[in-house]
Amino acid sequence: MPSRITGVLAPVVTPFRADLAPDPERFARHCRWLTDNGVGLAVFGTNSEANSLGVDERITLLDSLVAAGVDPARMMPGTGTCALADTVKLTAHAVKAGCAGVLMLPPFYYKGVTDDGLFRSYAEVIERVGDARLRVYLYHIPPVSQVPISLALIERLLRAYPQAIAGVKDSSGDWNNTKAMLDAFAAQGFDVFAGSETFLLANLRHGGKGCISATANVNPAAIHALCEHWRDADADTRQQRLDAVRATFQKRPMIAAMKAAIAHWGGDAAWKTVRPPLVDLADDASAALVGELEAIGFAMPGLAATSVAGHA
Amino acid sequence: MPSRITGVLAPVVTPFRADLAPDPERFARHCRWLTDNGVGLAVFGTNSEANSLGVDERITLLDSLVAAGVDPARMMPGTGTCALADTVKLTAHAVKAGCAGVLMLPPFYYKGVTDDGLFRSYAEVIERVGDARLRVYLYHIPPVSQVPISLALIERLLRAYPQAIAGVKDSSGDWNNTKAMLDAFAAQGFDVFAGSETFLLANLRHGGKGCISATANVNPAAIHALCEHWRDADADTRQQRLDAVRATFQKRPMIAAMKAAIAHWGGDAAWKTVRPPLVDLADDASAALVGELEAIGFAMPGLAATSVAGHA
Repeated sequence: MPSRITGVLAPVVTPFRADLAPDPERFARHCRWLTDNGVGLAVFGTNSEANSLGVDERITLLDSLVAAGVDPARMMPGTGTCALADTVKLTAHAVKAGCAGVLMLPPFYYKGVTDDGLFRSYAEVIERVGDARLRVYLYHIPPVSQVPISLALIERLLRAYPQAIAGVKDSSGDWNNTKAMLDAFAAQGFDVFAGSETFLLANLRHGGKGCISATANVNPAAIHALCEHWRDADADTRQQRLDAVRATFQKRPMIAAMKAAIAHWGGDAAWKTVRPPLVDLADDASAALVGELEAIGFAMPGLAATSVAGHA
Repeated sequence: MPSRITGVLAPVVTPFRADLAPDPERFARHCRWLTDNGVGLAVFGTNSEANSLGVDERITLLDSLVAAGVDPARMMPGTGTCALADTVKLTAHAVKAGCAGVLMLPPFYYKGVTDDGLFRSYAEVIERVGDARLRVYLYHIPPVSQVPISLALIERLLRAYPQAIAGVKDSSGDWNNTKAMLDAFAAQGFDVFAGSETFLLANLRHGGKGCISATANVNPAAIHALCEHWRDADADTRQQRLDAVRATFQKRPMIAAMKAAIAHWGGDAAWKTVRPPLVDLADDASAALVGELEAIGFAMPGLAATSVAGHA
């Protein structure tokens, strides 16, 4: 088996055309800029607006990335939906495409479901995909999904599927929870990714494998650098600089703000478009964001070269 | 245009085979029993486990119902998903099939979205479906979707799409909210359905059009009878009897409990199966449910005749 994917991954933002159709060319270009900056591709994550994409749209987009030469070994697509059939379809497709793993939300429509029901959900997907190459990263993001993944559930899944259950993305925003996952399962080869770079250094210091963070879309090189140099003397200073950039984005609606930044530094206004139910960042809000980011020395080097202004 | 659908509708429970595939024959039979008892078909609702069904599964199931001779003019399928593309696909399919209307959840993955974003979501679906026959019933179910539909949003949608926006199902469980919707919009032809028969009498007395209720799957004739006789002297007594039946189901996980009752009174154990993330009602819990229901004189007359025990 190839070694597991580790380090920093971006839930890659998904570009849309004016008619709200996904834009595969801009998508591939952004993916290439991210991998050139050391960052892996958690395409179809929360910050990718993946839950606003149809099943067929996700399949077509993933195929288009692979066809454009983006390496599937650097990809961890999100494949968890509310519906068993759709999750199986997306997961099987990702495995066949050669992706390093999949980031799998629990079914998130019904609330207050039991661990028995969630165990059965993940088990059915793993059994139906039935492929030894499958590596599942559980996606714990209770503020959005409202369906948490408990330590007891992880333990049960690891016991039943020690090969397939590869790790977790913890987007609880609660370091104590991440720490509890590390303490309980890291030693047995369960790879814990922090849900943002805020906890990247702490996670690496306690045996975690990296982070999967929205901001890696816009600040990839610096986040990757901390991941490479976390044992160095300046690690805490690096962490503080990352935190300042993240705080500036996080004051705004995150996805629209990241797209506005990519539009600005890439010189490509088409990037600003988000899909409903989200709304684009207004022009004055974009200008304020850019101003604040410039004030702390932020830039996105090399991005403009990858964009094709005028491409519609 | 044909007149609007009114009265009592059931979010029809979806039968599954042992391998968790939907069972179109049992589904059509249950739909026929419901319409024979005066109840319309809000197929693919929350209590249908529709959010655990894939897009293709929903399309195939709806086609199978129509092919089995179930009247689409009695149907209001749920078509709202997280994803614009999937919602458009399901909605267009329902309209083409001749359904009376569609019950449309807002996109429910992203939380804390704005009314602007939700307006744009519904507007895009209506525009893309682009069919004058489309009748949208907004689905307000904040305890599950976590994405409420505000009065201000309804007002804005009604102004922009007075033909397409036909009404609402209010599953907030808050009569004050239902009353506010009635007061604000009923006079302009906006049809308010209560989210359960608990508020059926109150809703009809204030200008509402009926209810769309889980329990209509198991107690259709009695709920329909209140809807027909709500001006009669015994209406409050009828309402109390309905409430007692509902309370007995509501003490349990509702969907599994209704399926257990259908399995029992239909003499067809296969009905007990739910899809993950839900779990079947245990045998002892089913027996307790049946005992409590029998104690209050509940039965499901005619159901056994429609079932084919031994059908797998």
